[in-house]
Amino acid sequence: IAKEVAKLLEMKAQLGTDEGKHKFVLKTPKGTRDFGPKEMAIRERAFKAIISCFKRHGAEVIDTPVFELKETLTGKYGEDSKLIYDLKDQGGELLSLRYDLTVPFARYLAMNKITNIKRYHIAKVYRRDNPAMTRGRYREFYQCDFDIAGQFDPMIPDAECLKIVHEILSDLQLGDFVIKVNDRRILDGMFAVCGVPDSKFRTICSSVDKLDKVPWEEVRSEMVGEKGLSPEAADRIGEYVQLHGGLDLIEQLLQDPKLSQNKVAKEGLGDMKLLFEYLTLFGITGKISFDLSLARGLDYYTGVIFEAVLLQQENEHVEEPLSVGSVAGGGRYDGLVGMFDAKGRKVPCVGVSIGIERIFSILEQRLEASEEKVRTTETQVLVASAQKKLLEERLKLISELWDAGIKAEMLYKKNPKLLNQLQYCEETGIPLVAIVGEQELKDGVVKLRIVATREEVSVRRESLVEEIRIRTSQC
Amino acid sequence: IAKEVAKLLEMKAQLGTDEGKHKFVLKTPKGTRDFGPKEMAIRERAFKAIISCFKRHGAEVIDTPVFELKETLTGKYGEDSKLIYDLKDQGGELLSLRYDLTVPFARYLAMNKITNIKRYHIAKVYRRDNPAMTRGRYREFYQCDFDIAGQFDPMIPDAECLKIVHEILSDLQLGDFVIKVNDRRILDGMFAVCGVPDSKFRTICSSVDKLDKVPWEEVRSEMVGEKGLSPEAADRIGEYVQLHGGLDLIEQLLQDPKLSQNKVAKEGLGDMKLLFEYLTLFGITGKISFDLSLARGLDYYTGVIFEAVLLQQENEHVEEPLSVGSVAGGGRYDGLVGMFDAKGRKVPCVGVSIGIERIFSILEQRLEASEEKVRTTETQVLVASAQKKLLEERLKLISELWDAGIKAEMLYKKNPKLLNQLQYCEETGIPLVAIVGEQELKDGVVKLRIVATREEVSVRRESLVEEIRIRTSQC
Repeated sequence: IAKEVAKLLEMKAQLGTDEGKHKFVLKTPKGTRDFGPKEMAIRERAFKAIISCFKRHGAEVIDTPVFELKETLTGKYGEDSKLIYDLKDQGGELLSLRYDLTVPFARYLAMNKITNIKRYHIAKVYRRDNPAMTRGRYREFYQCDFDIAGQFDPMIPDAECLKIVHEILSDLQLGDFVIKVNDRRILDGMFAVCGVPDSKFRTICSSVDKLDKVPWEEVRSEMVGEKGLSPEAADRIGEYVQLHGGLDLIEQLLQDPKLSQNKVAKEGLGDMKLLFEYLTLFGITGKISFDLSLARGLDYYTGVIFEAVLLQQENEHVEEPLSVGSVAGGGRYDGLVGMFDAKGRKVPCVGVSIGIERIFSILEQRLEASEEKVRTTETQVLVASAQKKLLEERLKLISELWDAGIKAEMLYKKNPKLLNQLQYCEETGIPLVAIVGEQELKDGVVKLRIVATREEVSVRRESLVEEIRIRTSQC
Repeated sequence: IAKEVAKLLEMKAQLGTDEGKHKFVLKTPKGTRDFGPKEMAIRERAFKAIISCFKRHGAEVIDTPVFELKETLTGKYGEDSKLIYDLKDQGGELLSLRYDLTVPFARYLAMNKITNIKRYHIAKVYRRDNPAMTRGRYREFYQCDFDIAGQFDPMIPDAECLKIVHEILSDLQLGDFVIKVNDRRILDGMFAVCGVPDSKFRTICSSVDKLDKVPWEEVRSEMVGEKGLSPEAADRIGEYVQLHGGLDLIEQLLQDPKLSQNKVAKEGLGDMKLLFEYLTLFGITGKISFDLSLARGLDYYTGVIFEAVLLQQENEHVEEPLSVGSVAGGGRYDGLVGMFDAKGRKVPCVGVSIGIERIFSILEQRLEASEEKVRTTETQVLVASAQKKLLEERLKLISELWDAGIKAEMLYKKNPKLLNQLQYCEETGIPLVAIVGEQELKDGVVKLRIVATREEVSVRRESLVEEIRIRTSQC
């Protein structure tokens, strides 16, 4: 229904533009949105948690341009390439907006011949997706990526990526979650032993990828009907993809008469076992599920893949159930950097991308449900006056406060009413008011009012900065 | 010469692609660049100073999409419109990359019917300029904008914008600077009394705008030769635009027999006087110059305009002279929001944009000249081992540290050499090493090494987090 309504609204909007000849449509482009001060305050909370975590793990930060040469993005995204935004050919290079941060990262490594880096990158990416289809999906959205590039001993960086996802989701208190883990090599081996022809690996993989949204029966009929897989092969796949568990399942599959004979599957399972050992040392296996149905669409993954999913909360206090879905994902891509190197020199990489938009929606919904009032500024004090003709005195005082590093505001009126000034503090959450009056000026003091308690104290002008600092030190 | 070299290099690059059939050019788009960890560290310092200042003045923060409907940008930039990046028509809306943050801000205000806000916005903007022409000019660059929208008593918000520029440039210690101030109304009045026809105001204004780069004689001949202004009118303009000063000059012009008869000029001069009174209260007139040659190109300004310029330093220690030029600019634009409102309702605005790219170049050059080593991570401790077979113990310890909020790294090797681990700390500036060894494990302690002094202390495992916090509290 939401989809239909969106369609109708769009048709209506288009009709609207045709009606009046020069009627200007005041809107942001389809699939994008502005963030107002309140939304930004929430967004910055989430960013802060994520950046703290990335820094805690010793990551450096980089930034790349919002667009890349079109050819840089070509051949990296499989079927999704049709969603790339191209820039108009205005003479010069052909450019496209970045689709993710991973391909620009690989281009950056190859271009600068960097073989070893741990970096994060938080920036907007662009996809010409149909944004009405899913809640919390936009055409412009932030990704928060953390990646480790370099030739290292197996599964140590991979385990750290999962630890990071665990830390961030725990820190943000988004509710219960599970991190599904699989390996492209296990998937490929599984397809091979089930009798999928090599040429069908990718397309069957993308069918498997749908298992988190549609039931097996549908996926099976797509495999057999649309993609021409034999029913026997599909049924064999069906048995595997229902499996999920922990170390026990890995051990079981290492004994599996068919899988254990397949070289890549065996490699993948061996590494998966090592990964689980490291995750046990990190104490996070409780939230990790080795899940044979996890496929992930992007072409460039070569080893471990993972995806964090929020679990539905049984929470009667929220009218609308929280949207549930993937909030982080990633994996190993050992071949991508080599695609940019003239000599094909590889730089093994593993990384994670935090899907911040869904996290925002959840934090927003939760905040709306709560009674918490979000402050959108950090102002410590309002410089106010009790009488008329004190604009100059207010300007002098606020200038002193700014120069001392105090966050201060005043109303931009010559003669504001005291009541209006106090009201402004109530509305915006400013905790203190520094009131100048004629008597105070004579006495060399400022009246400091604590908004919450309505208490007023007389403070000597030379002690005002210190007094404000002490009274707002918890802010 | 630099321009020619750039041209030749580009031609060479293009030839390069034609030579080899599939030779891939590994580069960022023309006029853009990556920021590596070191550059980002410098950039974040500058951002921190700027954001602190904006927050000190009580600004909220907003964000808007990187692209807008093409029609949103149409008719806002005069001659500069040709520099706008358009997106390819891929079916759907026609989109353009934002050219500045001011027009999207005005669109945001009109769309949300906001009549009163003080906000900052830091984001990239896009201009298809010729980036080789000037140092520190790019096609993708950051703007840091602070604007005050709303109907207020005259010149109070305008004065605050200048105070902000003064605070930021002082805080960043970029050397001596001057903030030139003028008013569109004074310019328009001046043109009128000099005998410039109304229809030529804008084009003559853009000639005047060149006075910071070319001498008066050249500007004059452009006015007379190309733009068909009478030599007499040009000479009259020439007398005015050489004037700059402070309150005294304002008083003088208020007495000017011609200017004082012009209504808009008189309004502008009256407000300029008020502005200087407020700036005197802020104590910053020492760096402010009322300058009749300041014009600023953009169409949307309606009142006060200003531009901050760094002054050439006499510094023999730097081999290459620091690039000098405009680092901030802004003004009042009372009509822009009304252009987006169906009923033309106006929201008066004044704002400032900090040109961060030039500031980066200066900070970068200065840092290179100094011996200061820039850290690109905040890692407090490296978890290391003195013997082999201690990977599991390192993983356990680092996990404990992460969970306690300590910024910790380890080498991703099973059995790294102690020397390599210590060397990594030297290179990256990590101040502490927590060394696990067999004896320490038995004793329930960790050896904590202070990299700078090579001192080693034995710390009980349960006190380690506290000990690291104390020893890195200044970080």
